[in-house]
This record gives sequence, structure tokens and C-alpha cells, in this order.
Amino acid sequence: MQLLKDRILKDGKIRSGNVLKVDSFLNHQMDITLFGEIGREFKKRFSDCEVTKILTIEASGIGIACIAAQYFEVPVVFAKKTQTKNIAGDVYTGKVESFTHGRVYDIIVAKEFLNSGDKILIIDDFLANGCALMGLAKLIKDAGATLVGAGIVIEKGFQDGGVLVRGSGVRVESLAIIDAMSEEDGVTFRD
Amino acid sequence: MQLLKDRILKDGKIRSGNVLKVDSFLNHQMDITLFGEIGREFKKRFSDCEVTKILTIEASGIGIACIAAQYFEVPVVFAKKTQTKNIAGDVYTGKVESFTHGRVYDIIVAKEFLNSGDKILIIDDFLANGCALMGLAKLIKDAGATLVGAGIVIEKGFQDGGVLVRGSGVRVESLAIIDAMSEEDGVTFRD
Repeated sequence: MQLLKDRILKDGKIRSGNVLKVDSFLNHQMDITLFGEIGREFKKRFSDCEVTKILTIEASGIGIACIAAQYFEVPVVFAKKTQTKNIAGDVYTGKVESFTHGRVYDIIVAKEFLNSGDKILIIDDFLANGCALMGLAKLIKDAGATLVGAGIVIEKGFQDGGVLVRGSGVRVESLAIIDAMSEEDGVTFRD
Repeated sequence: MQLLKDRILKDGKIRSGNVLKVDSFLNHQMDITLFGEIGREFKKRFSDCEVTKILTIEASGIGIACIAAQYFEVPVVFAKKTQTKNIAGDVYTGKVESFTHGRVYDIIVAKEFLNSGDKILIIDDFLANGCALMGLAKLIKDAGATLVGAGIVIEKGFQDGGVLVRGSGVRVESLAIIDAMSEEDGVTFRD
């Protein structure tokens, strides 16, 4: 998606430890006009699929998922990262190791919001080591629902997640795949 | 907002400890069509205001804020609840006591995303004790920006937040104000 790649080149900042800061438009400050174009592109790429629900993970996936959901005309469910008083015990659970935060956390979705008849599209901002995606896929499997695919805004193609997730049979559509990045040479996208 | 009140009566669940579960449509599973109507209503209520940015707080405010932002044609910034590797040290910070989670946490916004010229509308799902709202208002004040007002989906009118926040001079527009609720008698809305 050229508009997105141009924006990454213009406003993305590369930091040590393979961190790409896109917090001026994607995951802290959010450019809602860009999100609209991202949502439209996800709908185009998954136009051959029946989707009944979008699943994402807090926090930075939520905005993108909600805007995209307008094109699919389906509700969004977001997996929560910590147990809260408001969630009853009846939940699907998984564990995710965060690349950004460098720790392992639990993710949960209330069972009532994932049903065996659901055809679920996962939407998330980043695919790096694939742990978040595999964790969400496990929740979907536990619910007996169908995972239609995963729409990712930025895939770090130089990390293992893409190979891992696609190797497990999940269709992944990433709007920008970064094959290499460094503070010296900038970002190189996959064609 | 009648559509919202009807939905709360239909799908809201009252739990002990003054907890109103609306997680089937507002803050775990999200009804994006309803969010569209909520966003339209916020735009109507703040149509007399110039807004340059919407500020919310992770996680459950993000979806509503993003959908509403389409009507205001402005970006959204969400305050983060924990320090992450991706946030540089240059942040505005505050402390918030969560009614739902029963604990105190730090909120942060990168300084570059709140500017002295900004006219900021806060959007959030709940107003209960007012701590989140006052915490966000402090970040805006620290940035020297202008707080235009706060758009709240559900205000628990029987808690102190509404009086506290309005008393501090902030314009608050709540789409549904609950004056009383109990498992026996259900929800009573303010007229």
C-alpha cells in the first residue's frame, strides 16, 4: 500500500533494537484519514471472504480494527491483556510475549463473544515475532470459530513472525512489509 | 441519546459494586454501527467548538474516539497506561485511580502530540469517579493546550465524577446519565 509506505518513510523513526516508531500516525497519535484508507484496503484484500467479526488486541490494534470494521459491517472484539473485575471467569485465554514491552502477558476474550459459527478476521498494527497473532489464533481455535485471515498494517519481514504464522496455515495480508531497516540505511520494503 | 439508553436497558448487566457491564456492545465487543451514531451525536453536541485533536485513554476509549474523530476530521491521541520501550522520556504524565480495576496507574502522552495551540476534546466510554478525566485534563493543562470539553458515553450520575469535573469548569456532554442502578430495580436514567 503505497500511501502507507510513503508515510512510514516520511514519519517513521528507526530506533535501536529493531524498533520502528510510527507513533505520530499509527499507535499513539492516530491519523484517522489514513486509517480509513487502511480499512478500505483490508476490505479489498479480503473481499472474497465472509467475515462475521473482527478480532484485535489492546491497545494499538483497536483504532485500526474499528475503522476497518465499518467496511466489513461487523462488530469488533478486542482481546484484553489483563484480568479485570469486569470480565467474568468464562473466558478464552492465551499467553503472548510482547516484542515491544519485552514481557509475557495473558490475553483473554469472554467466551460469549467468540462463537463456533464466527468467521473471524484478525486486524493488528504490527507483525513481528508473531506471538500476538498466534495467541489470538489460539483463542479462535479454542472457540471452534474459523480464522479467515489476518490483516496487518506493518510486517517486520526480517523477524520470524510472518514465516511462523503463514507456516501455520493462516492467510496474512500485510500492507507494508519491511525487509530491512537500520538507522544508517533507513527502511527497505519488500516489493 | 435514546438509541444508547435503549441499548443499555436491553444489553447492560448490573453487577455488584456498582459495575455496569456493557461489554457486549461498548468496551469488549464493540458495535461499530452504534459507535457511528455516538460519534455523530458528539459532533452535534460540540458543533459550536473548534476541535483540533481528540484525546482518549487506553483501551476502551480508543474505538469510540477513532469513530468520532471521523466526524471532527481530526487525529486521535490516546494516553497510555504504562511506560513502554517505544515512548521516549519526553512525556506528560499523570496518575489515575481506576474504578474498574481498583488500582492507581500512571498515564503518559508524548509531548510532541499535545501542543499549546491544540483545542482538545476528550472522549471516553465512562465517567464514574472522574479520575481518568481529571488526569487527562492535567496532561492538557501541562501542555498549555485548551480543553474544549469532554464527550462521555455513559456517566454514572450517582458517583462524584460529574460534579467534580463540571465543578472544575470542564464542559461535559454525557450521552446517557445513570442516576441509580441496582440488580433489583435496573437502571434509572436522568431526564
